[in-house]
Amino acid sequence: MEEKLQELKTRLGEIRDLNKAAAVLSWDQQTYMPPGGAAARAEQLATLQKTAHNWFIADEIGELLEALNNDETGWDYDSDEASLVRVVARDYEKARKVPSELVAEFARVTTLAHEAWAKAREQSDFSQFQPHLEKIVELNVRLAEALGYEDRIYDPLLDQFEPEMKTAHVAAIFDDLKAELVPLVKAISERANSVDDSILRQTYEEQKQWDFGVEVIKDFGFDFTRGRQDKSVHPFTTSFSIGDVRLTTRVDPNYLPTALFGTLHECGHGLYEQGISPSLERTSLDDGASLGIHESQSRLWENLVGRSREFWSHYFPRLQAVFPGQLAGVDVETFYRAINRVEPSLIRVEADEVTYNLHIMLRFELENEMLEGKVKIADLPEAWNAGMEANLGIAPPNDALGVLQDVHWSGGMMGYFPTYSLGNLISVQFFDKAKTDIPSLPDQIAAGKFDELLSWLRENIHRHGRKYTPAELVKRVTGNELTATNYVAYIKTKFSDIYGF
Amino acid sequence: MEEKLQELKTRLGEIRDLNKAAAVLSWDQQTYMPPGGAAARAEQLATLQKTAHNWFIADEIGELLEALNNDETGWDYDSDEASLVRVVARDYEKARKVPSELVAEFARVTTLAHEAWAKAREQSDFSQFQPHLEKIVELNVRLAEALGYEDRIYDPLLDQFEPEMKTAHVAAIFDDLKAELVPLVKAISERANSVDDSILRQTYEEQKQWDFGVEVIKDFGFDFTRGRQDKSVHPFTTSFSIGDVRLTTRVDPNYLPTALFGTLHECGHGLYEQGISPSLERTSLDDGASLGIHESQSRLWENLVGRSREFWSHYFPRLQAVFPGQLAGVDVETFYRAINRVEPSLIRVEADEVTYNLHIMLRFELENEMLEGKVKIADLPEAWNAGMEANLGIAPPNDALGVLQDVHWSGGMMGYFPTYSLGNLISVQFFDKAKTDIPSLPDQIAAGKFDELLSWLRENIHRHGRKYTPAELVKRVTGNELTATNYVAYIKTKFSDIYGF
Repeated sequence: MEEKLQELKTRLGEIRDLNKAAAVLSWDQQTYMPPGGAAARAEQLATLQKTAHNWFIADEIGELLEALNNDETGWDYDSDEASLVRVVARDYEKARKVPSELVAEFARVTTLAHEAWAKAREQSDFSQFQPHLEKIVELNVRLAEALGYEDRIYDPLLDQFEPEMKTAHVAAIFDDLKAELVPLVKAISERANSVDDSILRQTYEEQKQWDFGVEVIKDFGFDFTRGRQDKSVHPFTTSFSIGDVRLTTRVDPNYLPTALFGTLHECGHGLYEQGISPSLERTSLDDGASLGIHESQSRLWENLVGRSREFWSHYFPRLQAVFPGQLAGVDVETFYRAINRVEPSLIRVEADEVTYNLHIMLRFELENEMLEGKVKIADLPEAWNAGMEANLGIAPPNDALGVLQDVHWSGGMMGYFPTYSLGNLISVQFFDKAKTDIPSLPDQIAAGKFDELLSWLRENIHRHGRKYTPAELVKRVTGNELTATNYVAYIKTKFSDIYGF
Repeated sequence: MEEKLQELKTRLGEIRDLNKAAAVLSWDQQTYMPPGGAAARAEQLATLQKTAHNWFIADEIGELLEALNNDETGWDYDSDEASLVRVVARDYEKARKVPSELVAEFARVTTLAHEAWAKAREQSDFSQFQPHLEKIVELNVRLAEALGYEDRIYDPLLDQFEPEMKTAHVAAIFDDLKAELVPLVKAISERANSVDDSILRQTYEEQKQWDFGVEVIKDFGFDFTRGRQDKSVHPFTTSFSIGDVRLTTRVDPNYLPTALFGTLHECGHGLYEQGISPSLERTSLDDGASLGIHESQSRLWENLVGRSREFWSHYFPRLQAVFPGQLAGVDVETFYRAINRVEPSLIRVEADEVTYNLHIMLRFELENEMLEGKVKIADLPEAWNAGMEANLGIAPPNDALGVLQDVHWSGGMMGYFPTYSLGNLISVQFFDKAKTDIPSLPDQIAAGKFDELLSWLRENIHRHGRKYTPAELVKRVTGNELTATNYVAYIKTKFSDIYGF
């Protein structure tokens, strides 16, 4: 039994090496690669991904998983061994359904699509990206058909990012959420002028912004001997091993929150990756449980910590010292209100906590419509703008600020967006439980102390990697199912306080 | 026939993808990777290299090469097709002799050795690197035995970097060279005080050094849409495709030549890589003919162009404008003499053109002694210091400035160093021929015009990639065999002028 486990781990380790090599190539593509590298990089990524896929779907892996199933081994459900076999068997069943050529085509198409998207966005011209997106939708339809589904074509795509979550479940949660958010946005709009964020829209020197963010995430516990931060067009976090976690961010010299909250957000992802148990290194379990769980970590550090009064009672004097010209006469309450200003806006990643989920709902709806053939890709900018008007009451003046703003589709990913909102909900469920377990947490945050929170997250969430499904993990940690209740209560309390209703 | 050629190219393309992915991982390791990433990176590189090796030594490749041999195809010797089959068959024969496990062990051992070397060098403590070097020598002995040899154990190792070159041939050339260089160094030493380079040893702002170097290599013709430059401890050039060529350099704020000539040198390598014919992309021929030929390109741009009077008649006023505080009162002749000052010194990469080859001879001798068991690794620092004393009359005060200065052994490479000196010889042979073909070349350089030189290099050398052996290429380009004659004549003329003897 031990021998078979070792053989499985050796095979999974080599597959993991190829996947991590591909991660390095993708990171380089988005941070440093010159444009001339795109075509060859597409081939390189295709070969790595195709090979990893071929190795994984080999009959030998199936035979090993069969021999190591729990009836034979009797391993404890929570053990590394049982978890490995359980999770990998689920992956294997799915992967066997996907033809290798489809995997390679995804890699090839999306590498070129990424370059086209970056250029289209720069020139605010959707038509340059359109043929690439058409191919990507077609590939996703083929992928969904290959994976199979009972209810919605979206189900198997969503399941890639949020295991065992269903489209109908998401739609139901989104309906509930919309019912709560719409009146809230309305109530806030009536008091829109009571919060002013003009202090954030001054010129802030880029290097100082960068350095301040780095200082904060060092305090959070991000280990720079096991990671680093670079610049990219669209911020992301990736990991090449538990000891090598890469954050990226972008800096806007004329808008302070972009880099600051981007850095805290990506750091939340990075802390998760750095906190996975070393015993899971180079297996398939050395990753987050799902994108929703991953996002719960980034949102927890960005919003529940980073946009709290307690946090700024500690950090605002430091920020003032870095930017005395911009902030010397400002009090912390004014700053707190400014960074929490609610306003329907065009760019998802810079949206406030109240309107953010309305951006997600638009993407969720459009993805379903594209996949079900209910909207033509050529008509997507129009549909996007109409949806923005309907959900948020504003329409983008151009495609760069509209349909071209996000990197995800250019990477071939559909079914990914809803996980952002699920992450928002889960972040509050986790944080509420952390506050119950650590009653002094608000005081600790107000003292710039995060070690107990980080330990709690590592113990309860990070170290487990992919051992548990998102639903299992939420239940284990909080005792409850996934719910919008905590999130809605948090939002209502926080913003009725700020806006005074 | 066409079908078999396509199949061969498909297989070689995928192997090339893995090798290029490994190149990205190595580049990242030396430029951006945090220390925590080392262990997992070693595994990733081992898997990539082992897999590439396994794919290459497959029986199917041998069968395709057999079927495509020239008796069957009748392809012209110079054609891409005949060259591909000819060169790959030679590679294949060698690769089949090397066990996959040895390749994987090389990757694993050297990735850790690189980290250990960097730390040992930082702390100037050879003992930290010693066990790694012992393993590396042992692996090279095993490699040489596997490849086989008739005369010297060094032969098959040298052949990896300089195809068809023999140890005895190198030793003979080195003996000739030594006989010329030793009296020259002596003559110069007697006039040592006639050249002063203290103007180079002032504080020069790092960013301005960087920017000046970039300006010059843009003039040379380095295409930044198909490449970039980053920082690393030891400068190197690597290529991820013909459209993505990466230079690295290092900057010393207190010594101007480090970054400046480092950048010109690496650019010479980079221009070679960028100039390979696109028809060779993703085959085995999209690389330099040998390290010696590669070095001829870097040395040509660094020394024959970059340390010439003509070059500085154009660029010195620009450099003065960048560093007025340091250079305002200096005339171009003083600067020209300073950058060409000859002095026995400790660091190879900063050695002048006259003493440089003496550094190489030491490494060549020590490598032979290590491989033949004539020196214990524990005694290497002592042997190094004794050799420096014998060859150059000076001994390093510590290991960082001595035996630990070069990256090569930590990367597992033995047999590499002599190619630097061969490159020096070939660079002058090529440049002499270029001057014959382009009589106005010195005037063009004095006008900061390099396009005709670059076109000549592309036409005669770059575009061919690995089609020809170094000996074939030197013969094709110059009509002569490899010789020290041109180099010795160049050195004597240049330095007797500078030192007045």
